Amino acid sequence: MNTAILLYDRVTALDAIGPYEVLSRVPGNTVQFVAAQPGEVRTDNGMLALVAERSIEDVAAPEIVLVPGGPGEVAARAGGAVLEWLRAAHERTTWTASVCTGSLILAAAGILTGKRATSHWLALEELGRLGAVPVSERVVFDGKIVTAAGVSAGIDMALALAAKLAGEETAQAIQLGIEYDPQPPFDAGSPDKAPAAIVELLSARSRFPAAAQGAPAARA
Amino acid sequence: MNTAILLYDRVTALDAIGPYEVLSRVPGNTVQFVAAQPGEVRTDNGMLALVAERSIEDVAAPEIVLVPGGPGEVAARAGGAVLEWLRAAHERTTWTASVCTGSLILAAAGILTGKRATSHWLALEELGRLGAVPVSERVVFDGKIVTAAGVSAGIDMALALAAKLAGEETAQAIQLGIEYDPQPPFDAGSPDKAPAAIVELLSARSRFPAAAQGAPAARA
Repeated sequence: MNTAILLYDRVTALDAIGPYEVLSRVPGNTVQFVAAQPGEVRTDNGMLALVAERSIEDVAAPEIVLVPGGPGEVAARAGGAVLEWLRAAHERTTWTASVCTGSLILAAAGILTGKRATSHWLALEELGRLGAVPVSERVVFDGKIVTAAGVSAGIDMALALAAKLAGEETAQAIQLGIEYDPQPPFDAGSPDKAPAAIVELLSARSRFPAAAQGAPAARA
Repeated sequence: MNTAILLYDRVTALDAIGPYEVLSRVPGNTVQFVAAQPGEVRTDNGMLALVAERSIEDVAAPEIVLVPGGPGEVAARAGGAVLEWLRAAHERTTWTASVCTGSLILAAAGILTGKRATSHWLALEELGRLGAVPVSERVVFDGKIVTAAGVSAGIDMALALAAKLAGEETAQAIQLGIEYDPQPPFDAGSPDKAPAAIVELLSARSRFPAAAQGAPAARA
């Protein structure tokens, strides 16, 4: 089994590393980080570089493809070799996965047309404009496609995927190994739960115009 | 404000990247990845390299130091320049933090002697042998030292720390930004909750002899 995690300039680190920490522990699964060109890839805030060991050309037919999100998704979905690679790879994958705004890249590649999918809560309307059927859930399966909500949701998605790949016991052993018994100090992790002023602040700063104009809290 | 996250060969990626994703979003905080030598650092399973941009010598007095865990902690706590750097840096930090078995490195540097601290559930007895007062909680504050339980606990720790650095509203905005509304598909993230057979399996495979001989489930 092999998994290719796509990296690109200004990817969000946790989108990639959360699922990586889970999927790299699935027995027999080799995870490779790939990018249009191999080498160091700078993450979204510029403070960290991850290494893509291989180019997308070198990993033509991964069984699992995972696309993380991040502000660099705008450039990534503008076209070119990455979208072509995704389209071709998806034809042969067992699972095609995304985290956060990685689903916008899958949608731009035409992979999500008419499919139920999710994304970062600020990007759900954009996801719909790109042809998917947006669903406000943490992890959404549609056939062999699995998409996760924002950033940290990739951990939940990867555990659900690990159960499908290797069984529930293995997924639970991975969960215990990474001591994933989350205890956030606040209950502010979704727009339904966070204080309205914070939802409005993030909506106003969003790069997605629909979110900025019609945030959930503003509509309520 | 600046934060140094220590990297070393065979570090666990999520131990470092979970807190990084939170702390890099604290306004005014610059995060630097440091190592004994700058350059690519291979993580625990060999499938990923993170880049340490600076050497520890270049970052002598960070306000916040964070030490992630991973199987490479055994070599890291064997002595040398890293422990000396930690001891000297800790004299001047505002906060000294660890995730998972990173606390064993802090303990080996003498920083946790007599202090309440936590670690990965399999490493709590080892933490006690190294002079700390082990506490089985997800996030433990003792003065300016904050330690987190295994791997994924670094996200919870970093949100608690972000609240102390920048206030609860900012921490909540970060939580909403990374959509940290965890929904694990299983409730197996701690030895108290996971099936006994899985606790025993991980205990038997543990590199910590006390854990292998007297796992919580085996004692129960």
